[in-house]
Amino acid sequence: MERLKARILSEGQNLGDGILKVDGFINHQVDPELMFEAGKELARRFAGVGATKVLTAEISGIAPALATALQLGVPVVYARKTKPITMPDQVFLTLAPSHTKGRTVELIVSPEFLAGGERVLIIDDFLASGSTILGLVRLAQTAGSKLVGIGALIEKTFEGGRAKLEGLGVQIESLAAIVSMEGDHIVFSDD
Amino acid sequence: MERLKARILSEGQNLGDGILKVDGFINHQVDPELMFEAGKELARRFAGVGATKVLTAEISGIAPALATALQLGVPVVYARKTKPITMPDQVFLTLAPSHTKGRTVELIVSPEFLAGGERVLIIDDFLASGSTILGLVRLAQTAGSKLVGIGALIEKTFEGGRAKLEGLGVQIESLAAIVSMEGDHIVFSDD
Repeated sequence: MERLKARILSEGQNLGDGILKVDGFINHQVDPELMFEAGKELARRFAGVGATKVLTAEISGIAPALATALQLGVPVVYARKTKPITMPDQVFLTLAPSHTKGRTVELIVSPEFLAGGERVLIIDDFLASGSTILGLVRLAQTAGSKLVGIGALIEKTFEGGRAKLEGLGVQIESLAAIVSMEGDHIVFSDD
Repeated sequence: MERLKARILSEGQNLGDGILKVDGFINHQVDPELMFEAGKELARRFAGVGATKVLTAEISGIAPALATALQLGVPVVYARKTKPITMPDQVFLTLAPSHTKGRTVELIVSPEFLAGGERVLIIDDFLASGSTILGLVRLAQTAGSKLVGIGALIEKTFEGGRAKLEGLGVQIESLAAIVSMEGDHIVFSDD
């Protein structure tokens, strides 16, 4: 998506160690119009998969997942990283290592909102090492849902996440795939 | 907003101790259409305040704030509760007691995205005791921004938050104001 790539080039900052700072428009401050254009494009690419639910992880997956779910006309569920008091005692829980947090985080979904028979589309802000997305896949599988697609705003191809996900046999889409970041020089894949 | 009130009546659960469980459509699973209808209504009510930025708190404020900001055509900033590694060392930070979490949480905003001269509209999912919103007000004031309004999806009038906020002299709006919850009996204010 050209508008997203242009924004990454103009405002993204390579902080080193594979960290791309995009918190002026995705992760802390959010540009709603950009987000809804991205949601529209993700919904277009996954129009044929028959998703009945969008699944993401708090916190920064919420905005792109909500925008995509709006376009698809389905609910979105965000996995919590801490269990709120409103959640039942029995939950689906998995552990996922977080590169940017430097530790393992819990991903928790209530069985009330992820059930057998759902067709789950996973949407997140980043596809990097794939750890968070694989955690969401495990949650969906544990719930007896069927995974139908995986989409991200930004992919860092050099972290190898896609390779880990390809065995799942579902469509994988990213709107801006970065093949290398060297200093201020960010290179996207041709697509 | 009638559609929101109807949803609270049909799916909201009073868990006691003032806790209303609405995680089937707001807090864990989100209904995107309901959220965008709410955002449209909040944007309509605050159309005259000249907001240049919407400010909210992660996690559950993000969806209604994003929906409102989209309609107003302004960016949204969500205060973080933990400082991500992409944030500069110098930040705006305040403490807010959280009733539902049973502890005090940090609210952190980067000075990059909240500056003097901004006209800040605060949007959150709940207006209850007002603690989180007052924390956001302090962040906006510390940044030298001007507070221009406060909006919430659901107000629990019996927790007294509005009284604490009225001294700020800005417009305060909620889309469903609950005056009492006794067992399954939820009563809204006339509005």
